[in-house]
Amino acid sequence: MSDIRSKFLEVYSVLKSELLNDPAFEFSHDSRQWVERMLDYNVPGGKLNRGLSVIDSYKLLKEGKELTNDEVFLACVLGWCIEWLQAYFLVLDDIMDNSVTRRGQPCWFRQPKVGMIAVNDGLILRNHIPRILKNHFREKPYYVDVLDLFNEVEFQTTSGQMIDLITTLVGEKDLSKYSLTLHRRIVQYKTAYYSFYLPVACALLMAGESLENHIIVKDILVEMGTYFQVQDDYLDCFGDPEVIGKVGTDIEDFKCSWLVVKALERCNEEQKKLLYENYGKADKACVEKVKELYKVLDLQGIFVEYENETYERLLNSIESHPSKAVQAVLKSFLSKIYNRQK
Amino acid sequence: MSDIRSKFLEVYSVLKSELLNDPAFEFSHDSRQWVERMLDYNVPGGKLNRGLSVIDSYKLLKEGKELTNDEVFLACVLGWCIEWLQAYFLVLDDIMDNSVTRRGQPCWFRQPKVGMIAVNDGLILRNHIPRILKNHFREKPYYVDVLDLFNEVEFQTTSGQMIDLITTLVGEKDLSKYSLTLHRRIVQYKTAYYSFYLPVACALLMAGESLENHIIVKDILVEMGTYFQVQDDYLDCFGDPEVIGKVGTDIEDFKCSWLVVKALERCNEEQKKLLYENYGKADKACVEKVKELYKVLDLQGIFVEYENETYERLLNSIESHPSKAVQAVLKSFLSKIYNRQK
Ligand SMILES: [Mg+2]
Ligand SMILES: [Mg+2]
Ligand SMILES: [Mg+2]
Ligand SMILES: [Mg+2]
Ligand SMILES: [Mg+2]
Ligand SMILES: [Mg+2]
Repeated sequence: MSDIRSKFLEVYSVLKSELLNDPAFEFSHDSRQWVERMLDYNVPGGKLNRGLSVIDSYKLLKEGKELTNDEVFLACVLGWCIEWLQAYFLVLDDIMDNSVTRRGQPCWFRQPKVGMIAVNDGLILRNHIPRILKNHFREKPYYVDVLDLFNEVEFQTTSGQMIDLITTLVGEKDLSKYSLTLHRRIVQYKTAYYSFYLPVACALLMAGESLENHIIVKDILVEMGTYFQVQDDYLDCFGDPEVIGKVGTDIEDFKCSWLVVKALERCNEEQKKLLYENYGKADKACVEKVKELYKVLDLQGIFVEYENETYERLLNSIESHPSKAVQAVLKSFLSKIYNRQK
Repeated sequence: MSDIRSKFLEVYSVLKSELLNDPAFEFSHDSRQWVERMLDYNVPGGKLNRGLSVIDSYKLLKEGKELTNDEVFLACVLGWCIEWLQAYFLVLDDIMDNSVTRRGQPCWFRQPKVGMIAVNDGLILRNHIPRILKNHFREKPYYVDVLDLFNEVEFQTTSGQMIDLITTLVGEKDLSKYSLTLHRRIVQYKTAYYSFYLPVACALLMAGESLENHIIVKDILVEMGTYFQVQDDYLDCFGDPEVIGKVGTDIEDFKCSWLVVKALERCNEEQKKLLYENYGKADKACVEKVKELYKVLDLQGIFVEYENETYERLLNSIESHPSKAVQAVLKSFLSKIYNRQK
């Protein structure tokens, strides 16, 4: 595992050096240095779960057959493409949300001399993906499918981001818009496709599979991604800040969280009034009132119920899948998230 | 001509309606309306030169053969992809430059309720391109080449934008960085590839040509794009504001303009001092001093010389091309820009 991680990080250096010497652009000393610094700041500093899961998934699809060096390398390359995609989303999301920190350091656009250049840096990150894919997959029979896959998933993610932005930022904060359907739609498009479906889809393509034959796999992974985000919403309020590594602010931020949606579903008129009056306020007392209501409505119990039901349902779907190898991939994802505390 | 234009605008409506009903995303009423308004505001309001030139070029490549309806439609689709690309660049460029107006209306990000959501809207515009291409070109033998082409040109454009940004915005305004090499590099990457090469490359692909066999065409078009930008820089200072439709501000904005580069090349120590002291200041008197210096250095004469030499050289290169049809395409571009006053 730590072996795979160090191999994965080696591949980052290879890709970076290719990009800094891309013959399609004449770098000057300054521009090459700018891109290098921007990449090192934004790409490799995360948990790398998405990227690493391409390699894990590909291994499981090969059912224990030893991978060649070339296969490991290519799976790492696809994994890095997902990490690049993630970096692109995060750099731009932080600008749009006017965020302060990311991964324990100031957001890129807050670095001295960066500012709004970060918008273009986000685009550079995004543009690196097809450069990387062309360098390493142009001759593969599935090249066009990988391009289509990344394009479709990126389209879905930006579309999910759009509904998130237009429901929370328009200055018309309105709890009555929040529903389970809206929550599911935001989460599915903004997070699930690129975080859960994309890594497995990459591994399937590398294994010679056609994605049209794996609609069920997609549906299961998207549901897992939704479940993952519900956990995220839950932990934001009820998790241990020491363990999750941050203090949640979804209530203050008027987020369309699973918790507030569930609370709206379950509250009486009086409790609804309390929610409308206190949700989305920075005031500590307001936040406490909302948390108190969540407890009164037993959202902790409701969450445990949701988690167990979802786990059972996902496990059943997985076990109905005809391929043991695919089952192994999906179970590996599920086991990583079930009951997680961070 | 006006016939082609109205046909072209019809195709916009078709593409818009496909995008608003894209099965890869579940639109809500609000999100569909948002995208429609955003498209109408940003995509069709320009001069449409880039888009229309795909159709012109394709016609010339077909040497007078009547085009089928299907061919006209597909050429329009590729033309619109370039207009979408342009809209994406402009929406984000206006944010980065903190601009006020664009095409005679407030910049998109300055619209009430839009603000930083415009960043994501730019990405949506960009993501529409592969959706459009997939809808209409997935089964064409040149599908993968069109994808590669748009990816490469976008990479070059964002790279050109990067050098523009890091040389002018870093808060280290320094005239000594400005040179003809830097000017050429910014212009070539930021403008020439997508404005001049891309439309012709699209037409060549539709005509069944392989772009690898047309490196010379690319070089000629990139040089034409550079020439076009030199004219733009010249007109910014010496053009008639009534005719060009705006009052130039390159001097105030400390732009790496062809004029300032030429002035630096030709001035003596005393004139250089004047330039360093007055370039990039909003003060009307400073701007006048710079303009006076440009006149003293006879930049108007130098420009006429540059224009005639470039025209001759381009015409020679074009006439050495073995294909009469390709010559016709290139001459059509050249005749549109030679001696332009706006
Ligand atoms: Mg954010
Ligand atoms: Mg956000
Ligand atoms: Mg969260
Ligand atoms: Mg601008
Ligand atoms: Mg700009
Ligand atoms: Mg100009």
